[in-house]
Amino acid sequence: MRIGGVLNLLGKLLLILSMMLLTPIPFSLYYHDGMVLSFVACSLIGLSGGGLLVAVFLPEKELGYRDGFAIVTFSWLGLALLGSLPYYYSGYIPGFIDALFESMSGFTTTGSTILTDIEVLPKSLLFWRALTQWLGGMGIIVLTLAILPLLGIGGMQLFQAEVPGPTKDKLAPRIQDTARILWSVYLVMTIMETILLMLGGMDFFNALTHSFTTLATGGFSNFNSSIGHYQSPYIHSVIILFMFLAGVSFSLHFLALRQNLTSYWKNEEFRFYVAVISIAIMLVFTANMVAGIYDNAGRNLLDVLFQVVSLMTTTGYGTADFDVWPPFCRILLVSLMFIGGCAGSTGGGIKVVRFLLFFKYARSQLHKLAHPRQVETIKLGKTKVPQDVMIAILSFFAIYLAVFLVASLIVTALGVDIITGPSAVIATLNNIGPGLALVGPTQNFSHLPDLAKLVLIFCMLAGRLELYTVAILLTPSYWHLTRRPMLRWRKKNVIKETGAPVNKNVAIQ
Amino acid sequence: MRIGGVLNLLGKLLLILSMMLLTPIPFSLYYHDGMVLSFVACSLIGLSGGGLLVAVFLPEKELGYRDGFAIVTFSWLGLALLGSLPYYYSGYIPGFIDALFESMSGFTTTGSTILTDIEVLPKSLLFWRALTQWLGGMGIIVLTLAILPLLGIGGMQLFQAEVPGPTKDKLAPRIQDTARILWSVYLVMTIMETILLMLGGMDFFNALTHSFTTLATGGFSNFNSSIGHYQSPYIHSVIILFMFLAGVSFSLHFLALRQNLTSYWKNEEFRFYVAVISIAIMLVFTANMVAGIYDNAGRNLLDVLFQVVSLMTTTGYGTADFDVWPPFCRILLVSLMFIGGCAGSTGGGIKVVRFLLFFKYARSQLHKLAHPRQVETIKLGKTKVPQDVMIAILSFFAIYLAVFLVASLIVTALGVDIITGPSAVIATLNNIGPGLALVGPTQNFSHLPDLAKLVLIFCMLAGRLELYTVAILLTPSYWHLTRRPMLRWRKKNVIKETGAPVNKNVAIQ
Repeated sequence: MRIGGVLNLLGKLLLILSMMLLTPIPFSLYYHDGMVLSFVACSLIGLSGGGLLVAVFLPEKELGYRDGFAIVTFSWLGLALLGSLPYYYSGYIPGFIDALFESMSGFTTTGSTILTDIEVLPKSLLFWRALTQWLGGMGIIVLTLAILPLLGIGGMQLFQAEVPGPTKDKLAPRIQDTARILWSVYLVMTIMETILLMLGGMDFFNALTHSFTTLATGGFSNFNSSIGHYQSPYIHSVIILFMFLAGVSFSLHFLALRQNLTSYWKNEEFRFYVAVISIAIMLVFTANMVAGIYDNAGRNLLDVLFQVVSLMTTTGYGTADFDVWPPFCRILLVSLMFIGGCAGSTGGGIKVVRFLLFFKYARSQLHKLAHPRQVETIKLGKTKVPQDVMIAILSFFAIYLAVFLVASLIVTALGVDIITGPSAVIATLNNIGPGLALVGPTQNFSHLPDLAKLVLIFCMLAGRLELYTVAILLTPSYWHLTRRPMLRWRKKNVIKETGAPVNKNVAIQ
Repeated sequence: MRIGGVLNLLGKLLLILSMMLLTPIPFSLYYHDGMVLSFVACSLIGLSGGGLLVAVFLPEKELGYRDGFAIVTFSWLGLALLGSLPYYYSGYIPGFIDALFESMSGFTTTGSTILTDIEVLPKSLLFWRALTQWLGGMGIIVLTLAILPLLGIGGMQLFQAEVPGPTKDKLAPRIQDTARILWSVYLVMTIMETILLMLGGMDFFNALTHSFTTLATGGFSNFNSSIGHYQSPYIHSVIILFMFLAGVSFSLHFLALRQNLTSYWKNEEFRFYVAVISIAIMLVFTANMVAGIYDNAGRNLLDVLFQVVSLMTTTGYGTADFDVWPPFCRILLVSLMFIGGCAGSTGGGIKVVRFLLFFKYARSQLHKLAHPRQVETIKLGKTKVPQDVMIAILSFFAIYLAVFLVASLIVTALGVDIITGPSAVIATLNNIGPGLALVGPTQNFSHLPDLAKLVLIFCMLAGRLELYTVAILLTPSYWHLTRRPMLRWRKKNVIKETGAPVNKNVAIQ
């Protein structure tokens, strides 16, 4: 591990985020909400912290495969810490753990909140809250389409070939090219949604912030009743459309834009995603009608569409309290939460492609038992899926289950009830937002004990980074450091002493 | 598939069970409960049915690999159907689905009941109820140690070498030898428990029937309050001991008897089993003390010991209502239900060895991500675990989860509440017995809708036969029948016509 290079890079990221901390200032000035000094102060703290890291640690030209895990985990943790300052510093969220929860919920595009009254927050802070999700979404796209395939986590190496941009061996240039292409798609879609929402009567501020959190499948809203604040079926429909699009791989959007729209339907994961959503909508719609939850079939359909797409894509917006729907609907919706979006989208969860491959695999296993002499290969589209990818995917399921169980045990041990606890873990581990019961769609996470909030913060981070990225940092063998100069002032010494700094061992602490 | 040979074998099994249907008669005579005619009638029905199958279908000398799946599934289904007749015929369980539920719960050693008052049943019927579990347990031991390893289901091929008896390629002789050895262990342990329970003051009838259902990890009791009927710590302790032993592989018991007691500790699965139970006991004990559920630490310890061992081994006996324990304890106990007993025991669930290998695999995966160039092999004891066994085990987890989700959805769709439904599925799929809430330890399954009971009957069967055995019968490609004479009267014709019957195609229906 090249810890110096990793920390230098983290410093640079913090410097960028510190500049971002100045972007809410125009809104603060426009709405006269008195937050200018808070944001300037937080930005200065970030600049000092980031600057210090850059000043102290040497950059590395070639960060390698193994450094990727630490870069990703440290980045999200560092950004969430810096991003929590405006909440805490302004006094709108007095507890530090609460502020960190809100910030981590933003950067991981989860959307769980500890705020009991969102609407009292100043506009500029609401802008920051939405911006953290949008920035988090940008991070996720690069993470899942450029970094994870290289690291070979949880079967993501399968998408290595599908990603746009030149394929080189070195980490940095590839990531930069991929990021530029995909971020422009993300940006264009955000602008489109903002315009469409404004056409429906939303003001610029709400249209922009809600577009931020839709495209990130984050789900932070500026209103206590979430999207239920708006009664307009047009606004609901626009948001359903963009939630749906945000749950699709951004590299597929790029492909469809460059070639033609049939690219979507040629993609097997996309077809499966559409199939799951359609079946879920039919089942929930029928169950709600049978149970007599709605008098009006049209209203039921729109609400079911919204809730199914919102939970499946792990956005977490709400227009109806699904916690009063029949038990069947609630279990089905919770199951959808586990599936999540397509790989390469901003959606969380286990990912559609892993379920698709799992079903194919289960079918081929059965066939193999009945006909042991036949050799069968599993394909995704036209690509043959290698056996080690299949193992990585299957073990991903098992690890997900294990983390879910352990986290649920800890949260309920802290006194949370038997529905709220596990569903809070599901809601955070899958980066959705709301759960059931006391953390249901009309509730929030503020009443949970602080320790439970820390567990859920861990779940958000671990779920977002596909578990392995975080888990690997917990294995002692990961922390063998490379023998390289790390600190800037040490470099000079090393050169002075030996004239050949490259292989000199520099002890840490 | 050699359907004729399979049905002929099923006929023979039904004939054996018909003889078994006469064994409750001495108890009926002794207790004057007027059930003699019922049992004789049911036995005659069984003799006719079994006799008909044997008379119509030709036996096969060499039933092959693929026939194993059908033999196992049809046997359990056939035995459960015949075994349900005494309940239904005597009128003590008026609904046929309820009678089938009780019978399937017996033969799969699940222990869920639809009886609201067990104690009104005649003694001979209670004997039959316990006997179905004991016979089911015998079936399970042969299934997991002799048949499944040959079929290669869910990683069970790993135990092929560990099974006592000569290892030949043909199915029948191997199964017979293995069965003889393991059944004698099972029989000896049943007799030992009966004697020990009688020394504690139990009468012969209750000691015998409770020994039947302990060794089978079945959990049917003759009392509404289960083992809570007895207050004696001695009786509780004896039952804890034998539940614990019944959760250990019977081939390991055989090894320990033939060699020495250190064989237990040399077995890695056994050590893991002891570790999980010990940790669970410590955690639940502490949580109960903290929550103030018990004033008396000794009573708490004995109750926790009993409940943890009972649920982990999937026996399902109760001495305390764990549904009033803190949420943390309830989630932990539900997690234990998934683990289940060791492979080769009569316990249900996913099995200890699969969890053990899963943990080893997760650790090696993390190590591999950190050090991609190192090659690691996973070992169980001194045996190297091949990659295809690992895949089979991982996919077993995933299939378990899928069946659990689908069954929970169907049961809740039928109007069962959100805790009762999934926990009823867990209780039956893992062959435990009681669940939480309305199917909790002080409740029963009678109030569920008939369709939900059918789903749970399927769960018991699928869970008991390690999912794949049942699932494979649902794949169309399994049903390619071999070109062989199948019916007895056809055989004569075939011989007459051609003189060489072996390759003659006989159409079915």
